[in-house]
Amino acid sequence: MNIQPAKPTNDPSEQERYKHGLEVLGAIDGDAGQKVVDSLADISPDLAHHVVAWGFGDIYARPGLAPRDRQLVTLGMLTALGGCEPQLKVHIKAALNVGLSQEQIIEALLHSAVYCGFPRALNATFVAKEVFAEQD
Amino acid sequence: MNIQPAKPTNDPSEQERYKHGLEVLGAIDGDAGQKVVDSLADISPDLAHHVVAWGFGDIYARPGLAPRDRQLVTLGMLTALGGCEPQLKVHIKAALNVGLSQEQIIEALLHSAVYCGFPRALNATFVAKEVFAEQD
Amino acid sequence: MNIQPAKPTNDPSEQERYKHGLEVLGAIDGDAGQKVVDSLADISPDLAHHVVAWGFGDIYARPGLAPRDRQLVTLGMLTALGGCEPQLKVHIKAALNVGLSQEQIIEALLHSAVYCGFPRALNATFVAKEVFAEQD
Amino acid sequence: MNIQPAKPTNDPSEQERYKHGLEVLGAIDGDAGQKVVDSLADISPDLAHHVVAWGFGDIYARPGLAPRDRQLVTLGMLTALGGCEPQLKVHIKAALNVGLSQEQIIEALLHSAVYCGFPRALNATFVAKEVFAEQD
Amino acid sequence: MNIQPAKPTNDPSEQERYKHGLEVLGAIDGDAGQKVVDSLADISPDLAHHVVAWGFGDIYARPGLAPRDRQLVTLGMLTALGGCEPQLKVHIKAALNVGLSQEQIIEALLHSAVYCGFPRALNATFVAKEVFAEQD
Amino acid sequence: MNIQPAKPTNDPSEQERYKHGLEVLGAIDGDAGQKVVDSLADISPDLAHHVVAWGFGDIYARPGLAPRDRQLVTLGMLTALGGCEPQLKVHIKAALNVGLSQEQIIEALLHSAVYCGFPRALNATFVAKEVFAEQD
Repeated sequence: MNIQPAKPTNDPSEQERYKHGLEVLGAIDGDAGQKVVDSLADISPDLAHHVVAWGFGDIYARPGLAPRDRQLVTLGMLTALGGCEPQLKVHIKAALNVGLSQEQIIEALLHSAVYCGFPRALNATFVAKEVFAEQD
Repeated sequence: MNIQPAKPTNDPSEQERYKHGLEVLGAIDGDAGQKVVDSLADISPDLAHHVVAWGFGDIYARPGLAPRDRQLVTLGMLTALGGCEPQLKVHIKAALNVGLSQEQIIEALLHSAVYCGFPRALNATFVAKEVFAEQD
Repeated sequence: MNIQPAKPTNDPSEQERYKHGLEVLGAIDGDAGQKVVDSLADISPDLAHHVVAWGFGDIYARPGLAPRDRQLVTLGMLTALGGCEPQLKVHIKAALNVGLSQEQIIEALLHSAVYCGFPRALNATFVAKEVFAEQD
Repeated sequence: MNIQPAKPTNDPSEQERYKHGLEVLGAIDGDAGQKVVDSLADISPDLAHHVVAWGFGDIYARPGLAPRDRQLVTLGMLTALGGCEPQLKVHIKAALNVGLSQEQIIEALLHSAVYCGFPRALNATFVAKEVFAEQD
Repeated sequence: MNIQPAKPTNDPSEQERYKHGLEVLGAIDGDAGQKVVDSLADISPDLAHHVVAWGFGDIYARPGLAPRDRQLVTLGMLTALGGCEPQLKVHIKAALNVGLSQEQIIEALLHSAVYCGFPRALNATFVAKEVFAEQD
Repeated sequence: MNIQPAKPTNDPSEQERYKHGLEVLGAIDGDAGQKVVDSLADISPDLAHHVVAWGFGDIYARPGLAPRDRQLVTLGMLTALGGCEPQLKVHIKAALNVGLSQEQIIEALLHSAVYCGFPRALNATFVAKEVFAEQD
């Protein structure tokens, strides 16, 4: 392609996007999000950049849907996808951070059985069990 | 198994569960849900029974999560699963019924790209386009 | 919604449904099913209720398909879904309980490679290896 | 790789494997399987070769599990995978061919709701509706 | 959250990102990508923005992997996901644009059967058949 | 079925196919593939036979697509499927064996986020981290 390559992630404009995303990530996911970013540092810092700059800075921070509502959609997706236990762990914590109660989270996962079947609902509920045990 | 078989769906107690579920279905999904039930009448009326009696009567009607919040979780799941365009159609209508705006639904589907990728988000958004066009 | 909420799971009619489901669960899954129910007791007893009362009492106990045949369908689904290793473990035991041989289970999982590909078939086969080792 | 490439599909030994697979395909899927093979002729005859020679000749024809039981596993997988409506159509016909009744097939798909959720069960049931209508 | 919302997509810096992304999209997907963008104009222009600005401008345009190699990964993903026939159509065209031959694409889809099973491989191959027919 | 059963895997012609497949497996996957075969020896040697004879001998060894290109497709599929971490481990090693660099693999997994979302991309990247750590 005879066109401009993507800006490197250390470009000042990208660093600004990243910095903004980190603030959003911290506000929603707290420590758990930062740990994911840290664990990518030596293998794919650019994946961390895009999770933060795009996923959080560009999308989560959009005003059209409240963070609490975004977490409900996210819990539904992660439960349905399957195999996303590490991400469910982060996002069940995030759901608590943005104002969902333990009871609402458990109810959302029970609700998911209607659409995804019991195995996905069970796997997600056992992740919640683990998260709540760490919190209490 | 030397144990009691499931009650037939025409057992009075099952008919009562079904009747309750139909009220919930009507309140949430409106006509769209009833059409699904009708289209099952000659092929699997018992599947219709369980969608209605269990899915709506037993689960949707639980007080622990608002119908609006259940739809957010449901939109997330149906988008993530893929291949659920007919169900997305029903549940995007339901989402409007229970108080989500067109803008919030579109925003939820944009949000889904972060977790499911663009193809799933695009397919769901085109279903919303179809639903909104029919409504307007 | 101005309609009746779902009956609480401690309602006598729900307790009766649950009791019936537990008998079915015991006959099919044996101890393994009960352990899943127990592990939900402190996080989502209502999910356990619905797995038991609906999944087993209402569906598994229907006379239209033999328990052995239901397990074949179930092994196919759990293999195809992926990420359901804990449920596969329970249902491979259940398959043995209801009359499928170790050889038939292994053959069903080999067969699955044609439709799901080798990775899903391999993951399910390694779960069977674990289950059979515990049994012998 | 300094190793022997795969035999071309027109090698006599491959033609023999293919011929055997075609007999198995015909016995199980009848016309429906042949139509899939025909529709691949001008785009990927080698995919058709491997569906027939391996999928049917090598796997379906194994004696360890009855054709009827293989179809139960297959219906479970195709329902769970989602987006496999064309293949479900072929295999619901095949299920009838190898001795499952319409009632057993519908029951298997109702059963699937417990593990895959209602959307997958509904989509598969509507395929069965279409197949049965063509048969009657 | 007491933090800066995401910049609106009509912010000059976002418009610049979008413009760059459009060039990349045009170079890879040609007309097909533009049609997707156009079809989003009245339902979710912001989803189009992010497909273009992030998906193409930020990711596809990265120098670390050739466009041809990205299409091989993409064909694998879209085949495995299932239910992505519209996206496969766009990306099979894109694969031809960036230098893969019809034969290589068909071979990649045959290869996919080993990992995803035949149904996914067949569905993707029939999309290729449609695309190639339009091209010839 | 009144037709010839599949040849047993110890038939000389099947043993020849297997031997050829083992050479291909060794050339592509090295030790990692052999370990999978070994771990199947006591539970499903016939699954091992078909992975080797068909997956590697018949498909990987086809001349129409370079081993390196097959690995790109495979990485895309395994990332998209989810729950295939053990297979990703084998195939990330294989990707290195057939000439992809660590940087290209990491870039392919970052690219996958556009189509599968971040959770799948993250899970695959953490498998790569593990594989690279073992190699260095």
